[in-house]
Amino acid sequence: MPSLDVAGEFETIERLLRPLAHPEWGRGLADDVAVLPSRPGYDLVLTKDVIVEGVHFLPDDPLETVAKKLLRVNLSDLAAKGSEPFGYLLACCWSDRCGWPEREAFAAGLAQDQALFGVFLMGGDTVRTPGPAVFSLTALGWVPAGEAVSRAGAQVGDLVFVTGTIGDGLLGLQAAQAKLKLDAERLARLIDHYRTPMPRLDFADVVRNLATAAADVSDGLAADLNHIAKASGVGIALNLSVLPLSAAAQAWFEDRVDPQAALEDLATGGDDYQIVFTAHPRHEETLRREAERRLLRLTRIGAVTAGEGVAVDYGGRRIELARRGWTHG
Amino acid sequence: MPSLDVAGEFETIERLLRPLAHPEWGRGLADDVAVLPSRPGYDLVLTKDVIVEGVHFLPDDPLETVAKKLLRVNLSDLAAKGSEPFGYLLACCWSDRCGWPEREAFAAGLAQDQALFGVFLMGGDTVRTPGPAVFSLTALGWVPAGEAVSRAGAQVGDLVFVTGTIGDGLLGLQAAQAKLKLDAERLARLIDHYRTPMPRLDFADVVRNLATAAADVSDGLAADLNHIAKASGVGIALNLSVLPLSAAAQAWFEDRVDPQAALEDLATGGDDYQIVFTAHPRHEETLRREAERRLLRLTRIGAVTAGEGVAVDYGGRRIELARRGWTHG
Repeated sequence: MPSLDVAGEFETIERLLRPLAHPEWGRGLADDVAVLPSRPGYDLVLTKDVIVEGVHFLPDDPLETVAKKLLRVNLSDLAAKGSEPFGYLLACCWSDRCGWPEREAFAAGLAQDQALFGVFLMGGDTVRTPGPAVFSLTALGWVPAGEAVSRAGAQVGDLVFVTGTIGDGLLGLQAAQAKLKLDAERLARLIDHYRTPMPRLDFADVVRNLATAAADVSDGLAADLNHIAKASGVGIALNLSVLPLSAAAQAWFEDRVDPQAALEDLATGGDDYQIVFTAHPRHEETLRREAERRLLRLTRIGAVTAGEGVAVDYGGRRIELARRGWTHG
Repeated sequence: MPSLDVAGEFETIERLLRPLAHPEWGRGLADDVAVLPSRPGYDLVLTKDVIVEGVHFLPDDPLETVAKKLLRVNLSDLAAKGSEPFGYLLACCWSDRCGWPEREAFAAGLAQDQALFGVFLMGGDTVRTPGPAVFSLTALGWVPAGEAVSRAGAQVGDLVFVTGTIGDGLLGLQAAQAKLKLDAERLARLIDHYRTPMPRLDFADVVRNLATAAADVSDGLAADLNHIAKASGVGIALNLSVLPLSAAAQAWFEDRVDPQAALEDLATGGDDYQIVFTAHPRHEETLRREAERRLLRLTRIGAVTAGEGVAVDYGGRRIELARRGWTHG
């Protein structure tokens, strides 16, 4: 598409984005398309997320971390399906605040994450917008043919596990908005998590081999479990009392007057980018061993039941969540 | 990605977008990803464009045609590479003006074009934005392995051809902005072209078999030829006098005081979505026959030369273009 904006886009592609291109498939960003050879024996896994300034990231977030977060939230989707990412297409709608230094920071963030995660830019588009900045990314990954994990395979009797800790996404947002009272180091860690969450690619192969259903925790643990329950035609019992908390979240939690409400907030907050999945009980030991080998926390938070929806237990009592998590949007 | 917006996005996916999903690969839009089986012997061709309200489409364009244009400009990129489209991922950032009826119109436009072009929705994202509406689309197509046409293959001695007519994109924009004086029927045709350009998929196989280099005319004929010249390391001689014009463009042209300036405007205006390509002279007759069979206009507009850049000839004189076409953006 052409645009009425003349300055900057050509240079942005030429000087900032071309160095990020896949050496072959991206065609040096000098063509209209990317061309990807077939990989027999593998399925291609695709996901596309879009983030809007003021909605999905804060206007004062550095563009370096905005770029990283954009890439990482997409890689998180691939990880939860047991897929190995290799590339992405990118569309940037730069706002007025995105001058050359900001664009350089954006590209620098991508360059660092490309090296970290082994992915390359394949193509895309760069335009200006009179409104808030908008960035869209399509991530591409491989998975052995037929082995992509879905949301739909949970079986009654399976156990429910989650990697890492839950709630840092919500607390990180509050920290970044200066709404949280904690010591400086913990605040910094939470803000780091909010700005540059770590996609659980290190656990993707385990999920692929052992999980019956999986999703990444983006909408909120309860909402994402609900997606799995619905797609699988089962119920899920979630034990709120064992929610795994980071040290920072634990410190915040200990200051709460109403611990149940606090845990509910964390379980519905979203933006955690952990993997929540179901697996047959016979795999529990293997799962724990694999998590340990990867220095990764793994918590059994519930079980798959007959019925529908998510039934939440807190201290032995069945409770109703006031809020089911962010709506998909 | 979660967002703070609760109303509308879930329903938009459930009621408007799910009916558009590929029956298998799109996973009913009920998963985090699309999963695409490998197609041995074929390469996957990918392209991604983004359009912003007020920049790439007009605030009063109906959302039905905005959706069609978004899809078509991406399909145009695939056609120019000789590729056959089959699917797309979509990200919608709805503005305040995008209520339910507007979203229904957007989905209806997609449904019509899916039937027309044989493509399916594979996945994506839908969010709200406080700014102008932004839509991003990633289109997917197949091409026999190794046969994707690039911008880089033009050879000295090749001829340069363009399908259809040039300038309707520019005049269509002016017509849609009520800046053009022409009879009502011609205005309507130009506005139609601006809002729903026709990707030249009907000529994609010919381009794949016979073109040495190709691009779709999106940035402007002169600019897109310049891309080909640069990527191929050659020069291109463009004969402005033979620029193919539609009846509406011809009527506009005949009213101009300065015919050379008028043709320059049309050759640099962009948004035409024709295919411009280079081919060996021995294929000229076959190309003309194939175009005729498809009821498609095909015009020889120049030749590939040693040197670099685009040399424009008008009435036997070498001229300099005041403007080289829209910058990519």
